[in-house]
Amino acid sequence: MTNNTSKATALRTHTCGELNASHSGQTVTLSGWNDSKRNHGGVVFINLRDLYGVTQVVAAPDSPVFKAAEEAKSEYVLRVTGKVRPRPGANANKNMPTGEIEVEATEIELLNPALPLPFDLGEHAGVTEETRLKYRFLDLRRPRMAANLVLRSRLSQVVRNYLYNLGFNEVETPLLTRSTPEGARDFVVPSRNNPGEFYALPQSPQQFKQVLMMSGMDRYFQLARNFRDEELRSDRQPEHTQIDLEMSFVDEVDVARVVEGMMKDIFAFVGDEVSGPFPEMEFSDVMLKYGSDKPDLRYALEIRDCSDIFKASEFKVFSGAMADGGVVRAIKGEGAAVFSRGDMDKLTELVKKLGAKGLVWLRFKDGKWESPTLKFITDAEQAALKERLEVRDGDAVFIAADKAAVAAPCLGGLRNELIARLKPAKLRKLAFLWVRHFPLLEKDAESGAWTFTHNPFTAPLPEEAHKLDTDPGNIRSAQYDLVLNGVELGSGSVRNHSRAMQEKIFALMGYDKEQVQARFGMIVNAMDFGAPPHGGIGIGYDRLIGIICGTDSIRDVIAFPKTTSGACLMSDAPSKIDDRQLKELRLKITE
Amino acid sequence: MTNNTSKATALRTHTCGELNASHSGQTVTLSGWNDSKRNHGGVVFINLRDLYGVTQVVAAPDSPVFKAAEEAKSEYVLRVTGKVRPRPGANANKNMPTGEIEVEATEIELLNPALPLPFDLGEHAGVTEETRLKYRFLDLRRPRMAANLVLRSRLSQVVRNYLYNLGFNEVETPLLTRSTPEGARDFVVPSRNNPGEFYALPQSPQQFKQVLMMSGMDRYFQLARNFRDEELRSDRQPEHTQIDLEMSFVDEVDVARVVEGMMKDIFAFVGDEVSGPFPEMEFSDVMLKYGSDKPDLRYALEIRDCSDIFKASEFKVFSGAMADGGVVRAIKGEGAAVFSRGDMDKLTELVKKLGAKGLVWLRFKDGKWESPTLKFITDAEQAALKERLEVRDGDAVFIAADKAAVAAPCLGGLRNELIARLKPAKLRKLAFLWVRHFPLLEKDAESGAWTFTHNPFTAPLPEEAHKLDTDPGNIRSAQYDLVLNGVELGSGSVRNHSRAMQEKIFALMGYDKEQVQARFGMIVNAMDFGAPPHGGIGIGYDRLIGIICGTDSIRDVIAFPKTTSGACLMSDAPSKIDDRQLKELRLKITE
Repeated sequence: MTNNTSKATALRTHTCGELNASHSGQTVTLSGWNDSKRNHGGVVFINLRDLYGVTQVVAAPDSPVFKAAEEAKSEYVLRVTGKVRPRPGANANKNMPTGEIEVEATEIELLNPALPLPFDLGEHAGVTEETRLKYRFLDLRRPRMAANLVLRSRLSQVVRNYLYNLGFNEVETPLLTRSTPEGARDFVVPSRNNPGEFYALPQSPQQFKQVLMMSGMDRYFQLARNFRDEELRSDRQPEHTQIDLEMSFVDEVDVARVVEGMMKDIFAFVGDEVSGPFPEMEFSDVMLKYGSDKPDLRYALEIRDCSDIFKASEFKVFSGAMADGGVVRAIKGEGAAVFSRGDMDKLTELVKKLGAKGLVWLRFKDGKWESPTLKFITDAEQAALKERLEVRDGDAVFIAADKAAVAAPCLGGLRNELIARLKPAKLRKLAFLWVRHFPLLEKDAESGAWTFTHNPFTAPLPEEAHKLDTDPGNIRSAQYDLVLNGVELGSGSVRNHSRAMQEKIFALMGYDKEQVQARFGMIVNAMDFGAPPHGGIGIGYDRLIGIICGTDSIRDVIAFPKTTSGACLMSDAPSKIDDRQLKELRLKITE
Repeated sequence: MTNNTSKATALRTHTCGELNASHSGQTVTLSGWNDSKRNHGGVVFINLRDLYGVTQVVAAPDSPVFKAAEEAKSEYVLRVTGKVRPRPGANANKNMPTGEIEVEATEIELLNPALPLPFDLGEHAGVTEETRLKYRFLDLRRPRMAANLVLRSRLSQVVRNYLYNLGFNEVETPLLTRSTPEGARDFVVPSRNNPGEFYALPQSPQQFKQVLMMSGMDRYFQLARNFRDEELRSDRQPEHTQIDLEMSFVDEVDVARVVEGMMKDIFAFVGDEVSGPFPEMEFSDVMLKYGSDKPDLRYALEIRDCSDIFKASEFKVFSGAMADGGVVRAIKGEGAAVFSRGDMDKLTELVKKLGAKGLVWLRFKDGKWESPTLKFITDAEQAALKERLEVRDGDAVFIAADKAAVAAPCLGGLRNELIARLKPAKLRKLAFLWVRHFPLLEKDAESGAWTFTHNPFTAPLPEEAHKLDTDPGNIRSAQYDLVLNGVELGSGSVRNHSRAMQEKIFALMGYDKEQVQARFGMIVNAMDFGAPPHGGIGIGYDRLIGIICGTDSIRDVIAFPKTTSGACLMSDAPSKIDDRQLKELRLKITE
């Protein structure tokens, strides 16, 4: 952390993090918080803290500042002037950057007192998240939280430097935009000047960044705030930050290389080596092998198709599934033979929640299979299974038989659970993966109509576009996801730049020309006037920083997050507003 | 503008801005727009344009690409492959960075056609702003507009680099905040998860940045989006961007030095030399001398108090004003003796609009005064006036007699008008000014109660704080504005860090403890637990970039601005929303 601060200010000459033996003899002024205090043989020692560190301040009993030092309570804000002196050899603290010295106070000014804190700022103090959020101004004083925010800030500059060096420009797109009721819910903002009408807060700058490409901006990026009015979960926030970028005259690979270079710089900043190109897999392959479009490839576990092994099976679970056009797939848990019947029941419940009818499991112990359903599996099948999954003593095998679309996510979910329970060796610390060529369209579960899988503006792969007329469900698209350690970090695509193509896709989704104009008019109109081929990506910045800071909760890397019910416990937002305000907006609250 | 783009992409090998004689003989691929085309002796020349420049592409009549070149209409998007060759000496274009060469096309691919444009992209094409905003994607292709956005982007990185080097961290504060109905109107956002409650979009990150200081963040900045639901004017937008910063353990001067260094870097980037410290004036002095708290100091014109000259005047306009506790002040227009009676009438109307009862004017021509009110002014007064204002032949003098609070803004407005009409010599290109020590409190015009002049969190000057009990209207505060060329660029202050002081000020404004808690609870609560002395500033980024780009309209430096009625003509925001959305939000539109 830089200490360039020290020169500019009259209220201190140095920060609490920068003094060392070379400053001995200098008179300095520090300002900061009373982090801790002890009385040692009548001498008061105060650890004075600011963002940059801690410096030991000493007040001797015969000193004129002794009283002020003695009266300083925890978190009092003090300005201390004094002389830097080396600590006697035995008292030097090698674990403290300023541990070589201490400041012998000649003046102590109380800048502001503090009430007793509602919780201790120490790393391990037990405190509920509710209390932490209510007193966020104190929670952020904790070194871990402060370090998270500083790192988040510094990495945003790493990102910007990288993109500027590649010729990108950051363009601020509007936050008061038009509501397009697709996907997640929009937050809306009533317009007083246009009664009955609303702005929407953007779910992403998608349309604007594409319009920027059409206006010739060539390479755009933005650390953009996005908004989604969703049911909140622990890793969701109503507003979140995205590294949003878009490039003209590019293909999927061009975008990937830019992102890989960015990840290289980001992780280099925290001391990790990352190098591209990252591994990439087809969406269909990744679903087959990992049962998830965001597999955690730090771990080796793979799903294996075993349909051929069981093609003649008389076990109704298998034969029935396959007769229905389904598959039999299996995953091995190394060392999972120790799982009890109770464990197996829990895993069965898990896959049922994910849609499976049940789970077949076999333990391999002391050279023998054991399973309640072993009798339905022939010796030849057992042998083939053992070979296919490279089963060794102490392993267990889990088999799902169902439609591929069900078996895959069930075994994918099971894979995650096996990783959590078995804690297998990590192949690598950082496992990046590009998942490519998601289906362009899928059937909407409710309406049965075609809908986009990720983004309505994604282009089909050129060689598959002809299937729009014949087989729309089987078109691979130029849509890609970036996955890191099992987390979907970003999502992007090469977009349609032809209005005819874009309208054809909208038509398949059931939009007539009028609806297209109302919802996407801006972008389709712009396509009429010379839209370049373009593509881009949006990368979840909160999640990325969360991974880097090693926290599961993005609330730990956001300065002022909301609770899962969307409340800010510190400012008490949201809140009721004046009747006058409502009236001006021509709104009435119902119920 | 950088050309680092060229290597990464498969759809082009170079940009349209980088080829020169050194590339002669190379086969290159360019992608861009058909900026203009001409047929010269059967040879087609296309100027291919991208963000980085224009390159001349040649298609000879016998070339296989001739037909494609001939068919390319204006703004068609083309990919051109061909050989770079030097232009014959006489044909080289020295005004064009790529003017040494041309590309002899061997392949031309039409990437996307374009309909005829609704307006010409040339700089001087007559086009209404409404059309420009509707087709913003085309308007932004105009070189001036594209250059504005690129410069805006690059300068934001200059700002960030500068602040990071000084140890600032950029912290993203929430955009879904609590409504505090002070000052301008909040935009509000209904919360679906908390029916009947609303978030507010922030008018500035003021409270959060102060809380960050209280959490020990030490030096914060953010290029922050702010929102105000105001009656729009030409220089206002419902959302605007601010360079927002806050520092702990600082005084006014510390903040000023940081801002001056930032301005130095910003203007150095565009080739202007700026150096601090900037001139500073007391608010009371600046009102006296310039009749405005944001005077344009590129011009020398000064208001002079002449009350002493006219203390014995029998002219009722003067004597009456002074009897009422008012003042007589004058300003000179150099060369303004040419103003006709009609001109003088217009200037009189102007000051009347600004609150004056009238305007006394005198022309000095051929060694003589002339004025309809000359008879009311004695010879001695005329002589004194001439001396006080250093009047020379051809000048005119304008006198206002009124309460100081009226005379000052009237003559300030007149000063601006004289500058506009007389176009006096500029003393300097960039005139920065710090206006310091605004009054802490003023009477609210409507309610008659005390209210803050700029910011409810501003601290009084320490030596004046005692007047809170005795003379609250006469307290100078640690509030400062940064003015550039007559534009208020930024506003900031040293804040209250003591809860007692802050509550005393709120009490004067008529808030009881409950109201303080409801509106400012977050910040006063945080003051209880060790708030450091702190101060900061917010600098209007749109305005700053507008000045640098030499435009009067901030709409020319914002990618997607709103009209004065708050509409986006391109996306058609705001708009009606679904009944379903309204119902989910438990809202009903009245009328």
